Amino acid sequence: MLGEFELIQRYFMSPQEAHATAGIALENGDDAALLVPQAGQQLVVSVDTSVSNVHFPHDAPAHAIGHRALAVALSDLAAMGATSRWCLMALTLDKSAFVDRDAAEQWLAGYAKGFHALCQQHSTALVGGDVTSGALTIGVTVMGEVPIGDALTRSGASVGDVIAVTGALGGGAGGLALWRQGERDLSHPLLSRYLLPQPRLAAGVALRGLATAALDVSDGLLADLSHLRNASEVGCALALDALPLANGLHETLGHDGAIKAALTGGDDYELLVTLSPRNIAIAQQRLADLGLSLTVIGRCTETLGVTGVDASDYEGWQHFSGEAP
Amino acid sequence: MLGEFELIQRYFMSPQEAHATAGIALENGDDAALLVPQAGQQLVVSVDTSVSNVHFPHDAPAHAIGHRALAVALSDLAAMGATSRWCLMALTLDKSAFVDRDAAEQWLAGYAKGFHALCQQHSTALVGGDVTSGALTIGVTVMGEVPIGDALTRSGASVGDVIAVTGALGGGAGGLALWRQGERDLSHPLLSRYLLPQPRLAAGVALRGLATAALDVSDGLLADLSHLRNASEVGCALALDALPLANGLHETLGHDGAIKAALTGGDDYELLVTLSPRNIAIAQQRLADLGLSLTVIGRCTETLGVTGVDASDYEGWQHFSGEAP
Repeated sequence: MLGEFELIQRYFMSPQEAHATAGIALENGDDAALLVPQAGQQLVVSVDTSVSNVHFPHDAPAHAIGHRALAVALSDLAAMGATSRWCLMALTLDKSAFVDRDAAEQWLAGYAKGFHALCQQHSTALVGGDVTSGALTIGVTVMGEVPIGDALTRSGASVGDVIAVTGALGGGAGGLALWRQGERDLSHPLLSRYLLPQPRLAAGVALRGLATAALDVSDGLLADLSHLRNASEVGCALALDALPLANGLHETLGHDGAIKAALTGGDDYELLVTLSPRNIAIAQQRLADLGLSLTVIGRCTETLGVTGVDASDYEGWQHFSGEAP
Repeated sequence: MLGEFELIQRYFMSPQEAHATAGIALENGDDAALLVPQAGQQLVVSVDTSVSNVHFPHDAPAHAIGHRALAVALSDLAAMGATSRWCLMALTLDKSAFVDRDAAEQWLAGYAKGFHALCQQHSTALVGGDVTSGALTIGVTVMGEVPIGDALTRSGASVGDVIAVTGALGGGAGGLALWRQGERDLSHPLLSRYLLPQPRLAAGVALRGLATAALDVSDGLLADLSHLRNASEVGCALALDALPLANGLHETLGHDGAIKAALTGGDDYELLVTLSPRNIAIAQQRLADLGLSLTVIGRCTETLGVTGVDASDYEGWQHFSGEAP
């Protein structure tokens, strides 16, 4: 097995794309990176940890693990309407999981490929990293920017605003169900939704000035909606029939399972937003230009809580865990 | 066991000291934090991971684990001459390690106390966090600032510069040896050096404009010196007799063991710097004002490599690991 320095050198200090290195005064490789924030912008920072057999199956393809660990972190920047600029990655590797040095290096090469490809897609430079030994765990810190005053938060929703969601829901849970059934083809749309989620950064930027509140659907629609309700002090009336379900979800989970996955499955990394009704058409047009749908699924109400769905019917969804079947 | 949100709420969102909240436009609690960098400053960022039984004993006191995880990360900012402003913490908890809920909460309360106390000491606000379940692992991202052009890097050393180190060396390794012998009293100076290291942030700031290169002693003096030699393209002549040894190190490890610990033990988190000989006196005065010594231990040479010590005598120091005795 290579040492830490050699590992970092070989897999995580590949030359970065020129467009991504703007704002880097000193690269990864000293004690810390030196970055140059842009004037007039606020810095947007978040950290997310992905633990093997808690957040993803340990035997998922290495490139998907690298992609996914970064994607779930970037999704938080998307939910703030920020563009992404830099990230730091703390990779804890379980060396005992590899039969030999070649297997370890093959895994790392795949992991780095998945991570770097998504970096490149979102003009994000990897500016810091740490490789340690232990149970496979990946911590990703992402740093982006948003013009002062333009950030989308959870607290701006008003009574009368409509509630809308980008793309489709339930794909994360549907993909996990397929994985447990033995499906391993990442080109299957549900499996791809689960293992290769796409952070909605462009959508977040497009919704600046339109969305009154935003967050990403990571814990499940009902749970994430409760964060929004609490922060904005509104209630929500949901229209179950309006939920945009991921392709193939009905076939995989049946009708009730599909609705449950959409409401509580999480791991979808779509944006959940509120908007004034008069702004829906323009918001939908902007997202259509990005190839993305925006579906109205409810409305903010004065009565606190959620109506339109009996939440007690939808408790106890199990996220991925090593103990599950 | 409390849920993630409750945990974060209770232990990691305690009101921050006013002086530490400057520059925070939106607190921890949304998808991401919004920060306001100061004009004329560069952002200095680094990430460090501390893994149980790799970087610290799993049964170390909880407050020391919280302190140490942050301290080793802050040490990288110190090595850049930066002041610290913000941090993010990703805590992966091994819930199975606790006999019951009370034990878990007691551990968390202690951990948070150690973490927050060091935050407060260095005016650092915790602006983001993630609590997950798995093998105990702590990732800390630190963010500081340094005026443009003032950062201390590894690459500025010149032939003729003297090499100096703050404080004393070998304490990390000496403390680990004591821990293995069963010592558990954190007031023992060596154990305190190992489990409660003090990041040298004030020293780094004081050495701005004086040090030509700097890094922190985390991997061991010889290893860290090799990073500096490679980055600056100089050699080093060391004076073994000049090494400042931690109090009690001779008694614990004997003469040869003490020298070996100072050269290769690591985990000391002192600053290793180079300076023009004419600046030594003023640098020593500035650090004396902080209650800290600065000891000249060698000189940068044209001949690459290290002289004054036979490096092959000092290979193979074992850092803490679960497999060790």
